[in-house]
Amino acid sequence: MKAVVKTKHAKGMEYKEVPVPKIGLRDVLIKVNVASICGTDVHIFDWTRWAQHRFTPPRITGHEFVGNVVKIGEEVTRVKVGDRVSAESHLTCGDCYQCNNGYSEVCRNFKLLGVDHDGTFAEFLVLPEHVLWKNDQKIPDEWATIQEPFGNAVDTVLAEDVAAKTVLILGAGPIGLFTTGIAKACGASLIVVSDPNNYRLAISKKMGAHIAINPRRQDVTHVVMEATKNNGVDVVLEFSGNNQALNQGLRTITPGGRISILGIYERRVNIDLNKDVIFKKIRIYGITGRKIFSTWYKTSRFLSAGLVDPTPVITHRFPLKDYEKGMKLMKDGKCGKVILNV
Amino acid sequence: MKAVVKTKHAKGMEYKEVPVPKIGLRDVLIKVNVASICGTDVHIFDWTRWAQHRFTPPRITGHEFVGNVVKIGEEVTRVKVGDRVSAESHLTCGDCYQCNNGYSEVCRNFKLLGVDHDGTFAEFLVLPEHVLWKNDQKIPDEWATIQEPFGNAVDTVLAEDVAAKTVLILGAGPIGLFTTGIAKACGASLIVVSDPNNYRLAISKKMGAHIAINPRRQDVTHVVMEATKNNGVDVVLEFSGNNQALNQGLRTITPGGRISILGIYERRVNIDLNKDVIFKKIRIYGITGRKIFSTWYKTSRFLSAGLVDPTPVITHRFPLKDYEKGMKLMKDGKCGKVILNV
Amino acid sequence: MKAVVKTKHAKGMEYKEVPVPKIGLRDVLIKVNVASICGTDVHIFDWTRWAQHRFTPPRITGHEFVGNVVKIGEEVTRVKVGDRVSAESHLTCGDCYQCNNGYSEVCRNFKLLGVDHDGTFAEFLVLPEHVLWKNDQKIPDEWATIQEPFGNAVDTVLAEDVAAKTVLILGAGPIGLFTTGIAKACGASLIVVSDPNNYRLAISKKMGAHIAINPRRQDVTHVVMEATKNNGVDVVLEFSGNNQALNQGLRTITPGGRISILGIYERRVNIDLNKDVIFKKIRIYGITGRKIFSTWYKTSRFLSAGLVDPTPVITHRFPLKDYEKGMKLMKDGKCGKVILNV
Amino acid sequence: MKAVVKTKHAKGMEYKEVPVPKIGLRDVLIKVNVASICGTDVHIFDWTRWAQHRFTPPRITGHEFVGNVVKIGEEVTRVKVGDRVSAESHLTCGDCYQCNNGYSEVCRNFKLLGVDHDGTFAEFLVLPEHVLWKNDQKIPDEWATIQEPFGNAVDTVLAEDVAAKTVLILGAGPIGLFTTGIAKACGASLIVVSDPNNYRLAISKKMGAHIAINPRRQDVTHVVMEATKNNGVDVVLEFSGNNQALNQGLRTITPGGRISILGIYERRVNIDLNKDVIFKKIRIYGITGRKIFSTWYKTSRFLSAGLVDPTPVITHRFPLKDYEKGMKLMKDGKCGKVILNV
Repeated sequence: MKAVVKTKHAKGMEYKEVPVPKIGLRDVLIKVNVASICGTDVHIFDWTRWAQHRFTPPRITGHEFVGNVVKIGEEVTRVKVGDRVSAESHLTCGDCYQCNNGYSEVCRNFKLLGVDHDGTFAEFLVLPEHVLWKNDQKIPDEWATIQEPFGNAVDTVLAEDVAAKTVLILGAGPIGLFTTGIAKACGASLIVVSDPNNYRLAISKKMGAHIAINPRRQDVTHVVMEATKNNGVDVVLEFSGNNQALNQGLRTITPGGRISILGIYERRVNIDLNKDVIFKKIRIYGITGRKIFSTWYKTSRFLSAGLVDPTPVITHRFPLKDYEKGMKLMKDGKCGKVILNV
Repeated sequence: MKAVVKTKHAKGMEYKEVPVPKIGLRDVLIKVNVASICGTDVHIFDWTRWAQHRFTPPRITGHEFVGNVVKIGEEVTRVKVGDRVSAESHLTCGDCYQCNNGYSEVCRNFKLLGVDHDGTFAEFLVLPEHVLWKNDQKIPDEWATIQEPFGNAVDTVLAEDVAAKTVLILGAGPIGLFTTGIAKACGASLIVVSDPNNYRLAISKKMGAHIAINPRRQDVTHVVMEATKNNGVDVVLEFSGNNQALNQGLRTITPGGRISILGIYERRVNIDLNKDVIFKKIRIYGITGRKIFSTWYKTSRFLSAGLVDPTPVITHRFPLKDYEKGMKLMKDGKCGKVILNV
Repeated sequence: MKAVVKTKHAKGMEYKEVPVPKIGLRDVLIKVNVASICGTDVHIFDWTRWAQHRFTPPRITGHEFVGNVVKIGEEVTRVKVGDRVSAESHLTCGDCYQCNNGYSEVCRNFKLLGVDHDGTFAEFLVLPEHVLWKNDQKIPDEWATIQEPFGNAVDTVLAEDVAAKTVLILGAGPIGLFTTGIAKACGASLIVVSDPNNYRLAISKKMGAHIAINPRRQDVTHVVMEATKNNGVDVVLEFSGNNQALNQGLRTITPGGRISILGIYERRVNIDLNKDVIFKKIRIYGITGRKIFSTWYKTSRFLSAGLVDPTPVITHRFPLKDYEKGMKLMKDGKCGKVILNV
Repeated sequence: MKAVVKTKHAKGMEYKEVPVPKIGLRDVLIKVNVASICGTDVHIFDWTRWAQHRFTPPRITGHEFVGNVVKIGEEVTRVKVGDRVSAESHLTCGDCYQCNNGYSEVCRNFKLLGVDHDGTFAEFLVLPEHVLWKNDQKIPDEWATIQEPFGNAVDTVLAEDVAAKTVLILGAGPIGLFTTGIAKACGASLIVVSDPNNYRLAISKKMGAHIAINPRRQDVTHVVMEATKNNGVDVVLEFSGNNQALNQGLRTITPGGRISILGIYERRVNIDLNKDVIFKKIRIYGITGRKIFSTWYKTSRFLSAGLVDPTPVITHRFPLKDYEKGMKLMKDGKCGKVILNV
């Protein structure tokens, strides 16, 4: 089969022929229909410091997808041949303190699809049955593949409810943009989006932002304070991974408010804990992964019930072999979500 | 001034001339612009068993309104002359266990506006400043007066979040109809409304119901189970005050779900606690009043930010002197909310 | 092997020789050391209406136990031979809406140990690995076997926190007594226990009750109101399964308080929903089973860290063959928990 | 009357004669019986950078106390002459977004007793009635005066429940020590306390710490990981205001756990947000002040019901005129709480 493989400890990947993987008793073989590119894949392509530290070639990359089950192991019960599935990208252990306590999204022994286990940028894929999600028929393939990052957005927004609350979203990459749509669907009364990329700011308006600001041209704090009559926002959702944006966010939260943080930072961060967190009695939620599978149910319903239309975020499609074009677009920020047709 | 006064221990009220009330140090005199009729007022008009037990004539009735401050007591600081205000109808004591613990909506010594304190169906009204709510300029008078019952709906819906959840609403009186709009605005993925009144079911569709059913013609349980693929609904919101509807609601909740109950019952209720609550691990929320003032903030934002348009629910307007026409319409169920122009 | 088997559609059970059960790929064979009797077992013994409707002979009964793993299936990874284990009594399906949403305690397809699957009143027992709990070394066998009902108590108490709150416990059977110890350990400031059985009331005092009342001799409402300066209690925990007790409980809750209900009722219940729930804005939690395994972690810690000493509740021990003596004691209420040594 | 007054923009205070203050319509005059010293008072005495920026002499200092009402304004209703009272130290405005939403502990316009309003280190004190707390008769004066800082501890511990959870407490000043007792009373299964001051570590053992460690001699992370079988703790409570301790705390939290932070830092802090918060999905609670008055109810019950005995924390008593001895002890850390008898 054809697959995008990270073969060397160096920049780049290879589109090459590899053997179709074998399945075990509880595994499932899936024919991939559509995959999509995440920032993680770009890090691996670029062989950044994070990738050098975390990734061991050779490995097929990619973790977002939709496909059909073509073969199941003898002990498999959750799915059957023909089911159209996507999957949770965290292959959890099922037996650590976290898994046993209902927090498997922070399993201490998880393997990451496309990093620790061969990924989705391939014609076929093998996964253990316990991570599979059967897709709602109403959700088209291009929406099904983006459920994994959409789930990140769901958990970031819904760490607490946003109904009739004012919201600042920092960072308008694909997850920030999905978040904008979700906050809108869940009754946020004001949505301000901040991002230095005007292409993405334009999409944020389509997703429901009331105010879209470029922090290189406008003072975020000033805009937020004016829009909230000096109360500040009830909720900040941080996706930028930028220390300065984080501090803007903390500064603009109203006392008693909350911030959810999904963005990853290049280095340790520096914050005014006294003034911006303690004296304001702020709640900070670190967010990673998705609840398995309660977040998937929510994601599926946001998409299938017409509550969020992700179409404006899906900006480009390529055949799998042209994956490098997608990688480049993402580095340049001239895109929303990039789809790979397998 | 002119006012609608319950003068006797008997059916009916009188539209008559009464003195303009006096204010104390912390009180405010308000010129009423618009009031609206609640089911409670109809009970008082009809002199039902509840009213006979609870109400002592003579008293000006009504508790929903919007008006302008025309005079303030010497110690008043929260409002000034000219402010356009509505008010929390529970005149709380501020010093009981509940008030001191942040649950003043269940104050043990509250006085109810229009029942224990002269009400809003009058040209002028006196209220202590601590129950006043300054209205958002974007909210027109007809919307401002319905904030009090709208707040009941807010607290019923948001006892837990409804985002990407399936919801059954039992009872489509004005509060059930506001609730439909709020559930829609907060991201419910399926909204089923049940009411025997077809006039009101039609309004529920305008407010966002996906399915509107008449329980006299359709089996509620059957419809809900079909629409949810036999899972049942995550959330039931009960406004009917009907024991049979309550049991339908409990039966259709998915295990682990919740019900919020605002409806008032004619007598004690009979339920299958084992099967419908305990073995399904259901959470039941009794709902009364509104959080003072956090619910008012939410209400104001749902209305001012365009999240919920209550227009379809406001079906009739009368001058104050024709209040009896409104009372009659409400008894007949041939209306949504009835407005009284003062 | 020897086992206690319900063999017929009639009152009674048989202590008889049966074959040692076989294991599948993901199953485990356990040698039982100690088991304990639950009210459910007494219902099955007595062949009550519930049992006739729910139970199909022949079946080995019992669901509380501790034992050692003696053999494991080829695919088993969670335990190894020699591990000292107990087990969650709900054999969940792992794939229904509830299991997938993190509420497997209300799995829609669960099988109950000792009812739908051969139970623990036997020398050997087979269980699927996913329900097994590895016991903390500090917990002796007699405490390990009662973790299952202790977990019911944990979830009933901790539906919301009880720290510095006043608590009324209705029903002082073994679970009500464990609950008393847990409420004490979690910082309840006042614990009132009500039960018509003086033997059990005496144990409740040892478990931490400040006030133990016999409702046949004292007015529960009066005692609670006096002890709480007429506020009522913040929390009611109901285990009696008695409609009258339930109503006493609802009546004595302070407005804004909560009740958790684990008791099972003989028939439908009758309550004053308006006065006792809605106008007081009460939260009602139906409780069943235990969170898998977060409740087990808590249970294990309450016992192993010395937070709750269940010794006063464990009143009788018999060899397995004398199980009928235990059944009789439980019917007579002249005991706390009854242990069966296998 | 005699009072301790900060008279100059310089180090030190003066014990001097000043006029008894006058009361307004809603004010109360209190004869102070006992006061106690907070770290804030030491900052003001020492005229630290914070004090220079925040405090304007002349002003009577101190905010912890118990006393008796000796005179009330004409409009006062909450208390009467003779009541034994303490007070919330935040004189809230009652009309900002926070006060109106039920978060008055982060009122945007509050005045701090002993900083913005004449304080408690005096024979008499005037306060608006709305901040007064009537003391439970069972609580002696020395316990009543420490309810204010004890309330900080209550809110830090109970941001989420700690029942059957493992807890690390960083910093064993008076609030950290109260916290130790509260965590014990609320069912924490393991309490580790870390502080470089051995005098205070010894008190922490008396308050319920299972393990007391001096971070200058032992590796906090190592001790915690060993005591928790490498899981880390469920809960960290941070009072040290030390960036290094904060990072130790974050590092030792188990994925999915939480930290509450009350400690104040000398400067901005530096943390590894990715690794210690985001990838572990940690919840951070900034804590300040106390819920008015729900925290006061809890505090009162912890003390009056015998759940926490603060005696080991109260180490020194002085007459008011010897306040400087107390200030010195606190700077040297050779004390727990220091009481001033007025």
